[in-house]
Amino acid sequence: MPDGGFADTYSPRNVLDDPSFRILAPGEVPAPDANIAAFYNPNHEIHLVQKPRPIPGPGQVLVHVRATGICGHVVLNVVLTRWAVIRSDVHFWKHGRIGDSMIVTDECGSGHESAGEVVEVGEGVTQWKVGDRVAIEAGVPCSKSSCDYCRVGRYNACEFSARPEVVFFSTPPFHGTLTRWHLHPAEWLHRLPDSVSFEEGSLCEPLAVALAGIERAGLRLGDPTLICGAGPIGLVSLLSARAAGAEPIVITDLFQSRLDFAKKLVPGVRTILIERGTTPNDAAQKIKTAAEGAVKVAIECSGVESSIHTAIHAMQFGGKVFIIGVGKNEQLFPFMHLSANEIDVSFQYRYANQYPKAIRLVAGGLINLKPLVTHRFKLEEAVSAFHVAADPSQGAIKVQIQD
Amino acid sequence: MPDGGFADTYSPRNVLDDPSFRILAPGEVPAPDANIAAFYNPNHEIHLVQKPRPIPGPGQVLVHVRATGICGHVVLNVVLTRWAVIRSDVHFWKHGRIGDSMIVTDECGSGHESAGEVVEVGEGVTQWKVGDRVAIEAGVPCSKSSCDYCRVGRYNACEFSARPEVVFFSTPPFHGTLTRWHLHPAEWLHRLPDSVSFEEGSLCEPLAVALAGIERAGLRLGDPTLICGAGPIGLVSLLSARAAGAEPIVITDLFQSRLDFAKKLVPGVRTILIERGTTPNDAAQKIKTAAEGAVKVAIECSGVESSIHTAIHAMQFGGKVFIIGVGKNEQLFPFMHLSANEIDVSFQYRYANQYPKAIRLVAGGLINLKPLVTHRFKLEEAVSAFHVAADPSQGAIKVQIQD
Amino acid sequence: MPDGGFADTYSPRNVLDDPSFRILAPGEVPAPDANIAAFYNPNHEIHLVQKPRPIPGPGQVLVHVRATGICGHVVLNVVLTRWAVIRSDVHFWKHGRIGDSMIVTDECGSGHESAGEVVEVGEGVTQWKVGDRVAIEAGVPCSKSSCDYCRVGRYNACEFSARPEVVFFSTPPFHGTLTRWHLHPAEWLHRLPDSVSFEEGSLCEPLAVALAGIERAGLRLGDPTLICGAGPIGLVSLLSARAAGAEPIVITDLFQSRLDFAKKLVPGVRTILIERGTTPNDAAQKIKTAAEGAVKVAIECSGVESSIHTAIHAMQFGGKVFIIGVGKNEQLFPFMHLSANEIDVSFQYRYANQYPKAIRLVAGGLINLKPLVTHRFKLEEAVSAFHVAADPSQGAIKVQIQD
Amino acid sequence: MPDGGFADTYSPRNVLDDPSFRILAPGEVPAPDANIAAFYNPNHEIHLVQKPRPIPGPGQVLVHVRATGICGHVVLNVVLTRWAVIRSDVHFWKHGRIGDSMIVTDECGSGHESAGEVVEVGEGVTQWKVGDRVAIEAGVPCSKSSCDYCRVGRYNACEFSARPEVVFFSTPPFHGTLTRWHLHPAEWLHRLPDSVSFEEGSLCEPLAVALAGIERAGLRLGDPTLICGAGPIGLVSLLSARAAGAEPIVITDLFQSRLDFAKKLVPGVRTILIERGTTPNDAAQKIKTAAEGAVKVAIECSGVESSIHTAIHAMQFGGKVFIIGVGKNEQLFPFMHLSANEIDVSFQYRYANQYPKAIRLVAGGLINLKPLVTHRFKLEEAVSAFHVAADPSQGAIKVQIQD
Repeated sequence: MPDGGFADTYSPRNVLDDPSFRILAPGEVPAPDANIAAFYNPNHEIHLVQKPRPIPGPGQVLVHVRATGICGHVVLNVVLTRWAVIRSDVHFWKHGRIGDSMIVTDECGSGHESAGEVVEVGEGVTQWKVGDRVAIEAGVPCSKSSCDYCRVGRYNACEFSARPEVVFFSTPPFHGTLTRWHLHPAEWLHRLPDSVSFEEGSLCEPLAVALAGIERAGLRLGDPTLICGAGPIGLVSLLSARAAGAEPIVITDLFQSRLDFAKKLVPGVRTILIERGTTPNDAAQKIKTAAEGAVKVAIECSGVESSIHTAIHAMQFGGKVFIIGVGKNEQLFPFMHLSANEIDVSFQYRYANQYPKAIRLVAGGLINLKPLVTHRFKLEEAVSAFHVAADPSQGAIKVQIQD
Repeated sequence: MPDGGFADTYSPRNVLDDPSFRILAPGEVPAPDANIAAFYNPNHEIHLVQKPRPIPGPGQVLVHVRATGICGHVVLNVVLTRWAVIRSDVHFWKHGRIGDSMIVTDECGSGHESAGEVVEVGEGVTQWKVGDRVAIEAGVPCSKSSCDYCRVGRYNACEFSARPEVVFFSTPPFHGTLTRWHLHPAEWLHRLPDSVSFEEGSLCEPLAVALAGIERAGLRLGDPTLICGAGPIGLVSLLSARAAGAEPIVITDLFQSRLDFAKKLVPGVRTILIERGTTPNDAAQKIKTAAEGAVKVAIECSGVESSIHTAIHAMQFGGKVFIIGVGKNEQLFPFMHLSANEIDVSFQYRYANQYPKAIRLVAGGLINLKPLVTHRFKLEEAVSAFHVAADPSQGAIKVQIQD
Repeated sequence: MPDGGFADTYSPRNVLDDPSFRILAPGEVPAPDANIAAFYNPNHEIHLVQKPRPIPGPGQVLVHVRATGICGHVVLNVVLTRWAVIRSDVHFWKHGRIGDSMIVTDECGSGHESAGEVVEVGEGVTQWKVGDRVAIEAGVPCSKSSCDYCRVGRYNACEFSARPEVVFFSTPPFHGTLTRWHLHPAEWLHRLPDSVSFEEGSLCEPLAVALAGIERAGLRLGDPTLICGAGPIGLVSLLSARAAGAEPIVITDLFQSRLDFAKKLVPGVRTILIERGTTPNDAAQKIKTAAEGAVKVAIECSGVESSIHTAIHAMQFGGKVFIIGVGKNEQLFPFMHLSANEIDVSFQYRYANQYPKAIRLVAGGLINLKPLVTHRFKLEEAVSAFHVAADPSQGAIKVQIQD
Repeated sequence: MPDGGFADTYSPRNVLDDPSFRILAPGEVPAPDANIAAFYNPNHEIHLVQKPRPIPGPGQVLVHVRATGICGHVVLNVVLTRWAVIRSDVHFWKHGRIGDSMIVTDECGSGHESAGEVVEVGEGVTQWKVGDRVAIEAGVPCSKSSCDYCRVGRYNACEFSARPEVVFFSTPPFHGTLTRWHLHPAEWLHRLPDSVSFEEGSLCEPLAVALAGIERAGLRLGDPTLICGAGPIGLVSLLSARAAGAEPIVITDLFQSRLDFAKKLVPGVRTILIERGTTPNDAAQKIKTAAEGAVKVAIECSGVESSIHTAIHAMQFGGKVFIIGVGKNEQLFPFMHLSANEIDVSFQYRYANQYPKAIRLVAGGLINLKPLVTHRFKLEEAVSAFHVAADPSQGAIKVQIQD
């Protein structure tokens, strides 16, 4: 596959250097078919920009993005080294960087949870036609047979192999999918059946994160399970764990309102409010009481040390703590407790091969993502959407931008 | 553990040789607290008997059996060699044997799907007290550390090791649990929470069969799944597969009425009526169309050669056909198709370690067994219950006997 | 990856229609640098041909093939449907077809177990340079992200998806690697360290078959193991099983001379001569006596029904019979014995992701393939090599052709 | 199984309160058949004692202990909470406690790596007869079907369930196996074939530790593997990893002499001397260079934080760090590196179901334990043996006491 220039095709400079690229003035009303997008920059500004409508080359598809999700999640006090965090839109805007490698150095497009409609296909694209409804998988690996990770199907590790061909749309410098007309490789789109809305299609991105966790955590029917954290990823993990037959499920959070939301989503879930200052051992005791015993699997979605310790102390001998959350670069672990109880600790970096399953589960009604959307905005109001997502007092779970 | 005489304790001769043991005359009304039971014999008769009320010895518990299920399943034309078939009550009555080793040579008590109430505990029994509600696990292995199967937790294989200590209540010569006062080892009872009825508790036995299948088949969230056969085990497997997140699920049967029943149980299931004479390849095509692709897991509950071939031809490369059903001693397999598609074939013999999970899933509402019960009888009417269960025209799924 | 014409690049017509292509006369001495090769045809003839030396295009590499292995294995009485048998060179020559899809309809080049030296690289090839020593992986899948099998790393299933892009060199109509100058995709070559000879590099192909079996069979350190058949694949499986720590290992065959060869390869192996007419049960008893108990894993390399039954009867409860061998299209299985003992049956179709491991194990000295080579020929003598390989009286295990 | 008093049978008071129990004077020569043993006490004294020769009760066997191993391993600066450390004899003598629960409060017998000869059997013991050669499994779980860990075969977790029935010989207060006449439950002895010496039989105990690690770490044929630490457990892990086909294997240590020993045991191993002060990243680079790439499995045998970090940084994406070593109660982990590379971390607590496999592998010649024994003493010289084992300048790997 002698292309070599895959990342070049999607180079951010193509957009930024185009003479028609410009930042819209506040209040300016763009033309109805203008290719507008929400961009942030190193000054922590977020604004609408207007950019050229791309023309699909060989193997490419032009998608009219119809729905995009934003998470109201800010990763705090984190020095990340090589991590294109999944819930990063607000973070990049507000903080301008994640670690030393992903730094916002220029205008950069946001958004990586999107679904839309095919409006144009490039040469050689046979599997898509105009009008097809698709979810967009935003991380595109090198896909070469000579890549030890792509060849064996673990393509989320491809970036790890430091190949320049990897593109993760919305991870700087690559522009994201929160735009009107998005250019994408044909092979990294996933067909949406008519019964799945664009909104649900865009939510398949955080669902893919949770499903990768359920799969790698080895969660099986009837496993007593703990979910740590009732934020967006925690809630999607909760829905997924229940769909996989976890029972009982206990979920923890620092805020009662989020636990109440969880309880509405999955009435059978048992909620534990963690009060600040509770020791991990005490919190674990409450969890074990609620679960009528120690748990077999924990899905840790906060990345916070005390929460991870709590999970560890709530486990059965031989249980697995599966950590999706990201957090401090180095963390203390209760080493001897892990050792004396043979507790496995596993981690997650993005996902691989989850989209088709995610769509299937939504289409089949096993996972209902709709209640997660608390706010909806038009594409022209994307800036307002970001401000709501970033303001904890708004209580947003999922903010959607639709076009 | 120097007992040695475990099986002796439960010897069928203890009952048959007791002077008070006798067959009730047709129409005879037993005393309200008499220890009556349904027994069959080599003449294919089934009748009520009266037998002594046992006194629990060390480590034993006396249970008032409150609910027992019968399956309306007859294993046809089968020469089984070493198989205590799970759905065997009607079969033993009507056919008098399964294979060469399990032969009805005398009066023998039926029933192995039971739940009840603790009424008396023997010496050294600390975990149970009078009034506790329990499900009865009918297969009791030797449990010795020197048994290579019991020690590693695969205790359903214990009988395989030909140890005389194994007792499977209701497999000849051992009397079953369809009686009023049943004596049982304390360690092989499972606590029922108040929210789980005795009826549901008794249904945990076929559920344990299905759950062992789901576990060993490796069925995971989102796996496209085929269930072959919509009889009692097929239906419980359907409920379990859905609880485990299988999607889509296709179920097959020769009778539309049974498919309709399946559809009522799990509305999302896709049903395929197999007409007699359809080739496995043609049936597989219909399944693949219904599933929108080949399936990853098949749970085969019929044991019939053509049904197994159908499942095999409906599989993805690398899929697994998991066979719960029992059937002809030798069967043809499409060898080269299995080989060229790396299809795994696995089998099941009873179950191990499934009861606690079964009860948890029922209590949590993830599996609703109640709709499976189509007929209910009093213990005194057990003979009528058997006649209904054995008559296909009655359309019984699960016949329950309650006391 | 908008190529589309991958298979076209390696189209057999490119060679056959070239004006310089011709069959050498018997005894004719080709020029020392002529691109000669061993071809067979529908008339069951095998002869040397002369063909153009290809020029590598983008992503391609020209390899001077230095060593190629032939197996003296004829698949008998088999109606295969979709199987590019791994040990097929002699079979295609003698029988002209495997199943209904792989039919020799024209002159076709043999050989798929090869290693050689890079002599020329095409545009964009950066990982190879002239002089690099490589093993050639002969099955080249489509490698597209949109292929459900390639994307998840199970690329041996790619052909199953009926994509026209798949090329398996030496499976008709594609010409094989038994030639002087072979054109190959850069991504499907594997580097040989200096310590691994070309001969060993070519033997990595059958080793890859065996290693895929060991991996998928789940064979672990200390597993009592049975190898059925002491032919080339059985012997390589024996070496691999011992390298993986199987103990004890029993190997069976119909010929004492092959068992003696096995014993020389792995002195600790326990050999069982199967006399014609022995029942599977009797043979299984002998195996269990030799193994001091039932075995946990069987690697079945014959594909013969009675041998498979023997393996099944020699298994522990819960064991796995892993079938590499190919055989009759439909075969009888002892269904109830499999069922009552929870014996898993698995199969293999070629291999995926085994070459790097194979080379590592040979380089590390854990697997010594050299004793398998019983005969060596020059490329110009390839026709003689085939006659030796096809003549059972010669007792060939591995015939090597070197250049 | 209504015994309840299993631990009572082996109560240390039975010995200490016996009127014939006494500490031998230094230099005193005991009678040739006296039941002498090596005991330590809270004053960090170690001495020979004389105690009654027990009489086997029902289910018990009296063993003449013929070989016992001591490890020269002192666990330093460790506050352990619930850990009967496997390499503890010297530690208990020198430090008097492990954690808060295992405290030496009285005279206590040492030794848990033993093999010997059956000299007397109790009532109901049918599987053993006088003269049988056996390895002694020192940890005896409750073995009850009502124990969730014993029933599923994970009996090393039994103690975790805080049952009073658990006996681990040599973990205070229970006396150990370093004695002449040892009483043991019949079910927890393992037959030694004639080809396995008593010395090798006693070494099956540390081998069982290593084999449990290999099994749970999922190490497979051809996995690039790192062993951290070349002490006794590291060396036995090295032998086991090589027997399982790990390749390449890199081993690290702080002492060149131990690496040299490792190289003599397994010539193909690649050794890396870790100099004090080397950063984990730098050490990991050296390991990756030696392994020609990142490793897939690490078996960590030191429990030291910097060594664990080194292992983590030497891993492939998706690799597993398996920690056998015990160490500081809490330890820092490179959290984000684990997360971004999906590195699994697993731990080990003793072992379950490893003895039969250990004996099989030694008998089959796949693992040669003999070179590990560097010093041998008579039982009467047990005190000297302990002094050698505890003195690092003696360079002891395994000290054996034989009778």
